[in-house]
Amino acid sequence: MAGRTLREEQVSATRELLLTAAERLFAEHGVYAVSNRQVSEAAGQGNNTAVGYHFGTKADLVRAIVRKHAARIEEIRARLLADLADPDDVRGWVDCLVRPALEHLAALGSPTWYARFCAQVVSDPALHRIMVEEALTSPSLQTIIEGLERCLPDLPAEVSAERGEMVRHLIVHVAADRERALAEHTPTPRSSWDDAATGLADAVVGMWLAPVTPAR
Amino acid sequence: MAGRTLREEQVSATRELLLTAAERLFAEHGVYAVSNRQVSEAAGQGNNTAVGYHFGTKADLVRAIVRKHAARIEEIRARLLADLADPDDVRGWVDCLVRPALEHLAALGSPTWYARFCAQVVSDPALHRIMVEEALTSPSLQTIIEGLERCLPDLPAEVSAERGEMVRHLIVHVAADRERALAEHTPTPRSSWDDAATGLADAVVGMWLAPVTPAR
Repeated sequence: MAGRTLREEQVSATRELLLTAAERLFAEHGVYAVSNRQVSEAAGQGNNTAVGYHFGTKADLVRAIVRKHAARIEEIRARLLADLADPDDVRGWVDCLVRPALEHLAALGSPTWYARFCAQVVSDPALHRIMVEEALTSPSLQTIIEGLERCLPDLPAEVSAERGEMVRHLIVHVAADRERALAEHTPTPRSSWDDAATGLADAVVGMWLAPVTPAR
Repeated sequence: MAGRTLREEQVSATRELLLTAAERLFAEHGVYAVSNRQVSEAAGQGNNTAVGYHFGTKADLVRAIVRKHAARIEEIRARLLADLADPDDVRGWVDCLVRPALEHLAALGSPTWYARFCAQVVSDPALHRIMVEEALTSPSLQTIIEGLERCLPDLPAEVSAERGEMVRHLIVHVAADRERALAEHTPTPRSSWDDAATGLADAVVGMWLAPVTPAR
């Protein structure tokens, strides 16, 4: 295969500029408060229809942002899974579950916008499905959930399901809280993403191991 | 004081119609995807500027919806607090913390829209503050957090703060998940709001009692 042409390089660079501008504007002002035209302008594109040309609709742009980050988070998750020492240890599985997203944010350097963007997307009735399809259906995530369930054999299926949902919410919103606090220079409980991940993992282990009150 | 005039009754009824229409449309389509004009039309108002006349901006309308529900949730919280049997029991405080919102949703009957609406508002950069001001600064909520902290004297301040934030996220998003599943007729772990509140309280107790890993 020949190398990429100059034209391909330019297209790739323009797409990257648009993705970065969109993510920042969406995080700071809201996914719906920002127009595709504003994204094109913020990305330095003379052509105000650049988003439409390169991505399509607002939803397509959102999907492209999620896909970019999900691929990197998946790499971190695969590495943590490969390093998992003890498959009978709840903490090890929980670390594989909660650390990848926060480690990814740490690796991006400051400031980041992806966590606040994600918190909006998962909470939006029209965009929610994009996050499920692009980030929550990865096979390695399923491996982790199954590994956790093998460590906790007595958990009723309904409790396992609801705790799984709770963990997903905590990862997204704890990360968004911390990112917002860093951006706005307001206090946040932990001094690093790594410590925040430790606090989150502690809480999640407690949650998974919590005794179950029988339903009435 | 004389009774309300007919004009006052009409204004009150119109405001209520607008609030209900807005909440439903926002929950189903997104707070920003719906215009004030669409809200006015869905509320059966011939005048398409009814939202502007009765409430002002979109943010003012969002605030009025939150305030209406927050007042009812506060009543439930005050009742649970008054009935609290043992101030040294973590579970009692956690019930006071997580049950009011879910009990309120149960009392509204099916379908509800408020939980999905809330999940969007708390995640939105421009609207987030409204939820903090209207629903998260209640004195009874502060009483509960302090009561919980007295039961858990060894928790470092940063851990207490981060777990408090996590609980707030879980209440909003567990409720929104369940409401969405009921609206879309998809499976949801629990068969009633009461059982969902029990599952949430179990998880939250486990989270508050979880051992703390020292920060690196």
